[in-house]
Amino acid sequence: MTPPGRRGIFRADMALKTPKHVTIIGVGLLGGSAGLAIKAHDPRIRVAGVGRRIESLEAALKAGAIDTAHLTCQEPVAQSDLVILATPVGAFSRHMRAIAPVLRPGAVVTDVGSTKARVVAAAARVFGPGGPFVGSHPMAGSEQKGVPFARADLFHGATCILTPTPHTPPALVARVEAFWRLLGMHTVRMAPGDHDRTVARVSHLPHALAALLMLLPADADLAVSASGFRDATRLAGGDPEMWRDIFTTNRPAVLAALKAFANSLDRFADLLARDDAKALERLLTLAKRRRETTILAALADRRIAAE
Amino acid sequence: MTPPGRRGIFRADMALKTPKHVTIIGVGLLGGSAGLAIKAHDPRIRVAGVGRRIESLEAALKAGAIDTAHLTCQEPVAQSDLVILATPVGAFSRHMRAIAPVLRPGAVVTDVGSTKARVVAAAARVFGPGGPFVGSHPMAGSEQKGVPFARADLFHGATCILTPTPHTPPALVARVEAFWRLLGMHTVRMAPGDHDRTVARVSHLPHALAALLMLLPADADLAVSASGFRDATRLAGGDPEMWRDIFTTNRPAVLAALKAFANSLDRFADLLARDDAKALERLLTLAKRRRETTILAALADRRIAAE
Repeated sequence: MTPPGRRGIFRADMALKTPKHVTIIGVGLLGGSAGLAIKAHDPRIRVAGVGRRIESLEAALKAGAIDTAHLTCQEPVAQSDLVILATPVGAFSRHMRAIAPVLRPGAVVTDVGSTKARVVAAAARVFGPGGPFVGSHPMAGSEQKGVPFARADLFHGATCILTPTPHTPPALVARVEAFWRLLGMHTVRMAPGDHDRTVARVSHLPHALAALLMLLPADADLAVSASGFRDATRLAGGDPEMWRDIFTTNRPAVLAALKAFANSLDRFADLLARDDAKALERLLTLAKRRRETTILAALADRRIAAE
Repeated sequence: MTPPGRRGIFRADMALKTPKHVTIIGVGLLGGSAGLAIKAHDPRIRVAGVGRRIESLEAALKAGAIDTAHLTCQEPVAQSDLVILATPVGAFSRHMRAIAPVLRPGAVVTDVGSTKARVVAAAARVFGPGGPFVGSHPMAGSEQKGVPFARADLFHGATCILTPTPHTPPALVARVEAFWRLLGMHTVRMAPGDHDRTVARVSHLPHALAALLMLLPADADLAVSASGFRDATRLAGGDPEMWRDIFTTNRPAVLAALKAFANSLDRFADLLARDDAKALERLLTLAKRRRETTILAALADRRIAAE
C-alpha cells in the first residue's frame, strides 16, 4: 500500500495532468461538443473520433471537433490517456469490451451517459471493480442531435455529476473531475444509484411529461398553441433512440418518479374538484418561489462561477 | 333587418375603423403591452389606463403605455370607443358592472382573459346577450408580471382567439378582430366552450404540470438540475393569483385535461414496466415528429405571416 503522504502527492499530480491524447467514441452533439471544447482549451491535445457513419466523422473533422477519424476504436484508444464514451447508453458495454484489451496502463475511461447504475456495473464487469472507469454525466445538451449542433461552450457553466464507487481509484476520479473543470464545468460526486434517482426526477420525468403532453391535444388545439406550449414540450424534441435507452436503463427510478408525479396530479385535481382556490394559490405560489430560490438562483451562480 | 348589401358595407366600414380612444383596465404585462402596441401603431390614439395601484399606473405612464392614469374607470370609459379588460379574470364581472352604465353608444368591450365561457356568460348578464362585448384571448404572455415587462411587440405574430356567441353583433366582432390585427396578431374564432377545452389542453394543463414538476424533486436534486428542467418548469413562474383564477374559472375543462393526462402517464408507465423498448421508441418518435410538423411549423408560419 502507498503511504498516505505519497498518495496525496500522487493524487494532486494526477488531478493537474491535462490529457495529451483523447479518444471520443461517438461524435454526436455531446461527443462533438467535447472535442470542440478540448481543442478550444488547448489545440495541442490530440482528439481522435470514432463513429459508425462516415458522414458524421467527416462533419466532426470539418468542424474541428476531432483531429483524426476512425471506424474502429482499437488504434486510437491504444494511444490515448483519456477515452470518452459518447454513444447512446445502450452501446456502452460493447464499446467497453472492445477497448479493454487495448487500453494503455494509466489511461482512464469515462462517459457522458444519462444513467449510471447499469453503466458503472457494466464497467466493473469489463474492467474489474477497481478498474480505470469513472462514470460522468455532464448535465448539458439540447434537443438537437448530431455534430452540426455541437458547440465548444455546451458544457461551460453546467454541472457534471461523477459517480465513483468505493472501489474507484481516487486519483482517477480526480483526473476526470479536473478534465470536466478544464471545460468550464462545475463537478459534484454522487453514488450511481443516487444519481439515477435524482436525474429520474429532474431530467427523465420531465422528458416523459413533455412527450406525453405533445401527444395529448388534437391538431386543432395545436394550431393555436403558443410559446408556453412550445417551451413545455421542448424536451420532446430529443432523440428517440437515445431516450429509449435512458428510460430502459433507468427503469426502477423512472417508474418511481412517474408514480410520485401521478400522485401529485391526483392531489391537484382533487383541490380543483373541491374548488379550493386558496389551496391552489398556495401551491402555485410555492412552486413559483421554489423555482426562483433554487434552480434560477443556482443557474445564475454557476454562470457567474464559470466566468 | 338591414339589407345584405348595406350590412356588408357597414361591416367593412366598422372593421376598418381604428379606435380613437381606448381604456385599458389593468395595466400589467398584457394591459401595458397592449398600450405600448397601440401607441407604437398610431401615437394619436388616446390610451387611458385604469389601475388599483398608483405605482403601476406611474410605471405605465413612464413607459409610454398610457396617456392618462385613473383609479376608477367611469370617466375614461365614457370617452372610449374601445374598452379592454386586462385584470385577472376573477375581477371581470365587477368591472363590467362598473362600466355598463357609462359606456358610449357604439363602443365595444373586449378582454385578454385566458378563460371564456364564464366571462362571456357574465358579459351576457351585464350587457345583455347581444351587448357590446366580444371575448378575446391573445395567446401571448410570459411568466413575468407587471408593466416593467410589457413590450410593444408582445402580441406581434401570436394568435388571438375571439369567442363571439350567436348573439354577438358581427360588426363588433369584425372591429375587435381588426384591432388585434392592427397589433400584428393572427386571429381565429371559436365558441367560448371550445376555446376553454382547447386552452385547457395547450395552456392550463402544461401550467399545472410545470408547477407540480417544480414541487416534486428534493432540494439536492434541484441543485444539479439543468436547462431542460428550467425550461420544463418555466410556466411555473407565472403569477399565482392570475393562474388560480384561470384554473377555477375553467374547472370542468381543466379536470378533463388532467384526467386524460393521468391516463397517458399510466400507459407510459405500463410500457416501461413491461420493458417494451420498441413501443417506447415509437411513442417518443411520434411526439418528436408531431412537435416538428405542428407547433414548430405553425410558429414559423405565423412569424413569416406577421412580417
